[in-house]
Amino acid sequence: MNPKITIISSTNRSKALTKTISVYYQKLLEAKNIPTQILDLSGLPQDFVYSALYENSGKNTSFNAYQKIVDEGEKFIFIIPEYNGSFPGVLKTFVDGLRYPDSFQGKKAALVGLSAGIQGGALALSHWNDILSYLGTDVMGLRVKLYQIQNHFKEGKITHPIFQELLEQQVEKFIKF
Amino acid sequence: MNPKITIISSTNRSKALTKTISVYYQKLLEAKNIPTQILDLSGLPQDFVYSALYENSGKNTSFNAYQKIVDEGEKFIFIIPEYNGSFPGVLKTFVDGLRYPDSFQGKKAALVGLSAGIQGGALALSHWNDILSYLGTDVMGLRVKLYQIQNHFKEGKITHPIFQELLEQQVEKFIKF
Amino acid sequence: MNPKITIISSTNRSKALTKTISVYYQKLLEAKNIPTQILDLSGLPQDFVYSALYENSGKNTSFNAYQKIVDEGEKFIFIIPEYNGSFPGVLKTFVDGLRYPDSFQGKKAALVGLSAGIQGGALALSHWNDILSYLGTDVMGLRVKLYQIQNHFKEGKITHPIFQELLEQQVEKFIKF
Amino acid sequence: MNPKITIISSTNRSKALTKTISVYYQKLLEAKNIPTQILDLSGLPQDFVYSALYENSGKNTSFNAYQKIVDEGEKFIFIIPEYNGSFPGVLKTFVDGLRYPDSFQGKKAALVGLSAGIQGGALALSHWNDILSYLGTDVMGLRVKLYQIQNHFKEGKITHPIFQELLEQQVEKFIKF
Repeated sequence: MNPKITIISSTNRSKALTKTISVYYQKLLEAKNIPTQILDLSGLPQDFVYSALYENSGKNTSFNAYQKIVDEGEKFIFIIPEYNGSFPGVLKTFVDGLRYPDSFQGKKAALVGLSAGIQGGALALSHWNDILSYLGTDVMGLRVKLYQIQNHFKEGKITHPIFQELLEQQVEKFIKF
Repeated sequence: MNPKITIISSTNRSKALTKTISVYYQKLLEAKNIPTQILDLSGLPQDFVYSALYENSGKNTSFNAYQKIVDEGEKFIFIIPEYNGSFPGVLKTFVDGLRYPDSFQGKKAALVGLSAGIQGGALALSHWNDILSYLGTDVMGLRVKLYQIQNHFKEGKITHPIFQELLEQQVEKFIKF
Repeated sequence: MNPKITIISSTNRSKALTKTISVYYQKLLEAKNIPTQILDLSGLPQDFVYSALYENSGKNTSFNAYQKIVDEGEKFIFIIPEYNGSFPGVLKTFVDGLRYPDSFQGKKAALVGLSAGIQGGALALSHWNDILSYLGTDVMGLRVKLYQIQNHFKEGKITHPIFQELLEQQVEKFIKF
Repeated sequence: MNPKITIISSTNRSKALTKTISVYYQKLLEAKNIPTQILDLSGLPQDFVYSALYENSGKNTSFNAYQKIVDEGEKFIFIIPEYNGSFPGVLKTFVDGLRYPDSFQGKKAALVGLSAGIQGGALALSHWNDILSYLGTDVMGLRVKLYQIQNHFKEGKITHPIFQELLEQQVEKFIKF
């Protein structure tokens, strides 16, 4: 049986396109009969940068529900919008609140970048790969960069043929990874 | 007259060594008669990741006080502790809450990394340099990496001679940068 | 008087577009009355990766002519084509053959990336900025990424208005940097 | 049967410690009954940066022998010394001479950094991971950084207990990767 894959919608921005793309990615996995779940950072407790980090680590019940999802997962797709030329700060802050080193150690990940501009999150994904490597996570080589996403996602679907192909490849490879 | 230099203590962790090192750095600048101020992320509003970002950008009065300090600054020293192999998420989230593109554009920065381990924040500073570059900030080449800082900071002073020398160099160069 | 600016055409590929863009960049500087010279890696000795590195450092007369140009320069524009998702290996090998640490220490640089694809050398420039930082060079924040350059360079001129504007900005800022 | 693992000694410097460490790593693999071979860049043709790249791609018989070893390999350990704050230029130039995209696509890699200084090639490995990702290679999360290697390698053996442990972990994980 295939293990469940957790898709991390990597921003707390409500109504973000990131969430929509995460749902789209979920459908790609479900079409291959892979069980999935979405971990959506938009539901994080509003004060988690204080109430769930450092000396408060492990003390915030709402945050702990997120920790539990990470604990139970083995494989993660990060859907990462580009903010200020890198990943959203809230994604890193989320990870800063998780237990170390076992939260992601020995697990597997694949990366998808989103941007309004031309980069598709190239640096965001490079930086995030470094962090996952530090955490002991194996990251699949193929990073998918969905640039100018507003032009290439219509009516709930990716419309750019190369994007479709790259996502399809990533899904197929990640199932076996 | 020399412009004021703003030292950013880049974590919201209370009682962080980062703050202590920021105060130490301030003394190095003051010894050269440079006016300074510390922008300490530990005072950020507890819910700023919701109340000061995205559709709420500019609406949080307490956060706006931070924006004002950034707006008035021309030169910034970032004191960056290494968290999970990179910069603290809260530092990036803070920047994600600032106005773009004028908050840091055309300004100048220098970077100091801190770590308990051996890296001294090498990747943290590389990632952060990329982000500042995206923001249009000129970053001084000399990045100071204070590794195993707990062994090299005693009674309010950096004790490692090479660290002292590198900080001294950085200060002198940054004043002219 | 403005110091001379050295433009490094960062590949040894003969007839590379990189050289053509370097000449174009030179004209932009000359239009501001800035003296320039091009350091073109396509003229490096064919066996320099052996005859000018490591125990042979300083012994190759032809390579030493390049060292001399670097020694005399204070400001450098790197025109960097994207090869295999980063800078050309030959550019790094060239630097590996230069004296350390004084070749680039305390000097100034600005970066231009070229690519046939969509990235414009985003990672190439990030990596190269790290290396220049290691060498003690101050790198201007504004990195210009000329993506899909074959579509945007016609009859000796950059035709994409945003590229023109970014290059113009970079030139003006770098003169004062 | 386990596939052969190719260890890439990533410099052309003759008598480099990199080669010695590559042989040491080979013994670690052989102790697990894994067939191995070392691909040593110190044997590259002296003029390969001209005679095996660009329009001469595929034309240099001596270089083609290296291409063949890469073609036949599925799993690669890169032993990467830190030169000028990153990987050796000659390693990237070597890859710039290989066929694209099939040389490394769909293959697997693990990274070891070496340095005289304190970094252990942290940035070298980050940059190299980006390049392998571009080439479609899956890179194991655990990067081993052997810093101040001259103090921790005596009489043909790694003497630092943590280095020994990390290498042992890397070997065991990479066999299953």
